[in-house]
Amino acid sequence: MKTRIVFAFFILYFSTLSPAIGSTFGAEEFTLDNGLQVVVIPNHRAPVVTHMLWVKAGGADNLPAQSGMAHYFEHLMFKGTKTMAPGDYSKTIKILGGNDNAFTGEDYTAFFESVSVANLPKVMAMEADRFQNLSPPPEHFSSEKSVVLEERRQRTENDPRALFMEQMDAAFFINHPYGTPVIGWMDEIKNYEWNDVKKYYDTWYAPNNMILVVSGDISAQELKPLTQKYYGGLARKNLPARIRPNIPDAQAITDLTLHHPQITQAQYYKLYLAPTEAKNRADSLALQVLVDILSGGPTSRLYKSLVVEQKKAITASLSYNANALDYGTLSIEGTPAQDITPQDLSQLFEEEVKKVITQGVSDAEVKESIQKLEDEAIFARDSLAGPAMIFGQAMATGSSVADIENWPQDIAKITPQDVARVAKTYLDENNPWVRAPINGYLLPAEKPQMQEDINHVRKE
Amino acid sequence: MKTRIVFAFFILYFSTLSPAIGSTFGAEEFTLDNGLQVVVIPNHRAPVVTHMLWVKAGGADNLPAQSGMAHYFEHLMFKGTKTMAPGDYSKTIKILGGNDNAFTGEDYTAFFESVSVANLPKVMAMEADRFQNLSPPPEHFSSEKSVVLEERRQRTENDPRALFMEQMDAAFFINHPYGTPVIGWMDEIKNYEWNDVKKYYDTWYAPNNMILVVSGDISAQELKPLTQKYYGGLARKNLPARIRPNIPDAQAITDLTLHHPQITQAQYYKLYLAPTEAKNRADSLALQVLVDILSGGPTSRLYKSLVVEQKKAITASLSYNANALDYGTLSIEGTPAQDITPQDLSQLFEEEVKKVITQGVSDAEVKESIQKLEDEAIFARDSLAGPAMIFGQAMATGSSVADIENWPQDIAKITPQDVARVAKTYLDENNPWVRAPINGYLLPAEKPQMQEDINHVRKE
Repeated sequence: MKTRIVFAFFILYFSTLSPAIGSTFGAEEFTLDNGLQVVVIPNHRAPVVTHMLWVKAGGADNLPAQSGMAHYFEHLMFKGTKTMAPGDYSKTIKILGGNDNAFTGEDYTAFFESVSVANLPKVMAMEADRFQNLSPPPEHFSSEKSVVLEERRQRTENDPRALFMEQMDAAFFINHPYGTPVIGWMDEIKNYEWNDVKKYYDTWYAPNNMILVVSGDISAQELKPLTQKYYGGLARKNLPARIRPNIPDAQAITDLTLHHPQITQAQYYKLYLAPTEAKNRADSLALQVLVDILSGGPTSRLYKSLVVEQKKAITASLSYNANALDYGTLSIEGTPAQDITPQDLSQLFEEEVKKVITQGVSDAEVKESIQKLEDEAIFARDSLAGPAMIFGQAMATGSSVADIENWPQDIAKITPQDVARVAKTYLDENNPWVRAPINGYLLPAEKPQMQEDINHVRKE
Repeated sequence: MKTRIVFAFFILYFSTLSPAIGSTFGAEEFTLDNGLQVVVIPNHRAPVVTHMLWVKAGGADNLPAQSGMAHYFEHLMFKGTKTMAPGDYSKTIKILGGNDNAFTGEDYTAFFESVSVANLPKVMAMEADRFQNLSPPPEHFSSEKSVVLEERRQRTENDPRALFMEQMDAAFFINHPYGTPVIGWMDEIKNYEWNDVKKYYDTWYAPNNMILVVSGDISAQELKPLTQKYYGGLARKNLPARIRPNIPDAQAITDLTLHHPQITQAQYYKLYLAPTEAKNRADSLALQVLVDILSGGPTSRLYKSLVVEQKKAITASLSYNANALDYGTLSIEGTPAQDITPQDLSQLFEEEVKKVITQGVSDAEVKESIQKLEDEAIFARDSLAGPAMIFGQAMATGSSVADIENWPQDIAKITPQDVARVAKTYLDENNPWVRAPINGYLLPAEKPQMQEDINHVRKE
């Protein structure tokens, strides 16, 4: 599917709006007898709804040597059932005047449709069908492999930044499936077998492993009979444990360097391990404020200092992925200005980080940041798909409806002391890290051209 | 067990003698109906035998989150059967005047006993018993976890070199179980469950997954009825496929740096991917000659140039692990002389490597090296346990008896052109690597002492 496009939107959305969850979504939740968890987020501005089904299985749940299976399977979900031909699903949604898509993350796979509320039953009937009766014609099994391989070629192999990020993740997440790309490794995509694909569906696509989020012109009372009618018949399954090994203590500092012919402008990256919002809410909220102070726009510390004042960087940012099942990350990314090496830029980031560790942040900074995050939360409520995304992603990674609803009140309680504490805890390199941060240098090519014959010998 | 001690001997043995396999071992082989492969290496100098059972499952066959299971299970094999108490196995061997031990590698687990030939039937009876009727008392299940955890503490956690090598392997072997230590990660050893342990035994300990190697005062004709009597009753099992994913293309250069308080002398390491002997015999044999020329003793290139002449290093070596199921490695290791940084030493190694890539090696060097390797092969035949080790390790990683027997003739055919070719193929950094080599810098501590409270926060 158009997975990555949606995913890009999704990342963008969250980097600006994820922390912006107000207490006034007014979400209601209930659970069917078969275990399907349902959340309704009423929004009556227009007679439309966004319907999202989140399956709690993603790239990090694939078996060894079957990387990318969750994502490949997401594609297959559009390839027909006993009564629908391949492609008919999306065609029908389009005829109904709606749109649909799907995406796969490390921890979940999600399918969404936006349609008029009158057409919701039709959508739910089709969803119930493909979640129970998926039956793609055999030729689609292998042709869809080619589609995914091509997707990988375009989005990863031909994008040095994506390729490098993949190797950064692989080096960072020792012994943990977050080190494996969601789309999968080339060799392994090629080798999927139908039995394994079928087993994936039978294992994870179960109502007691799913969350339904409906946002829009509907109430829980109206949705309840529909969910019962369409999804009540999905059979509960015995779910296996999700195998998520711990990252072992890894104190070595890791530097990755890639010279790439497509790169003209050097780029610096750094990855730190960070807590997830669901596992350590107190620290996570304080980190969200810290990240906003350091990197929440043109007046934030990093941009102001490195780009505007010192003019040593063209871009300078810190982002925080808090919504994950196992591990969160803090990511530094920067483009050095002319005559500045990425190593220099690394030092400049280091100095800004040291400043916050040793001197903390001011009352005014925290106040301003909280106000801004709260304002963003108010905007978040305006959208239809946005809140469904927020609830689905947070809940699929262990947060509760209450966590999301209480986010604005909870973030408002963060103090400069909290921010200083988490800066010391998660960014101070004098700490005995569980997993030391890693540095990445993505640089223009400097090596001579490779010889064809050697290429041949090595790749045999 | 005394695994690591034996393993050390084993490594030492192979680094000097592995290539030294003559065609005159006179080995004979046969296979039992249940699939047990048997090799006999006659040696009639004394009325003794070494009996080795190799199970084709090791550290790299453990399931996710069960690292170290193969090694832990090797320990359990000494913890009693329905008729033997824990520890009785080794006690009995000692009473018989023999000795026994076991060790676990990435690809295999091996058990060996050296006894007088008269006592061989007794040993085989005990082996048949523990390979079928293992039944350690429940209290040994958890007490042996403590033993292994303590082994890990002593041999890895308290040895910065071992700790660093573990992190080098983890960074190098992306997506492949060779990145996981054979002894296992601390957290995962603690969490073994009895069902998983039992399943490991039931899955892999099968005659059709084993090789018996007997070296010493016995012939195949004499051994055959004994193997039939004692091992003929072991039941063949359906073996699962060994899941060994490929390392994906990884072009980024990786540098690992660890500052450690126990390190007083900096150390430099480098790891390259290399072919295995079983998968690419021609290249592997040429690499064995190359490695001998570069690092086969005090007159070899690296030692002579870096240590003796330039006096820039205290040690300088290159070693080659060719006997593995999936991937071999070339490992550079060096200790810089005073006032030389490990980065400088890295450059010096680089120059020597470049020299061999651009200028190749001489006829005389190849001739001398082959002569030396052949001489070592003659020595190898003298030992009892040595040949059993060589056959077991090579066969458990995919080589045949003929491969081992023909090694001296085959290595004698290696030419300077072959050596130059493999130097270019496997050591030239201008190649498009499948997996780029990685550098390791193990250095004295330079960081300030960590604060106890931060320690506490981060490790929570």
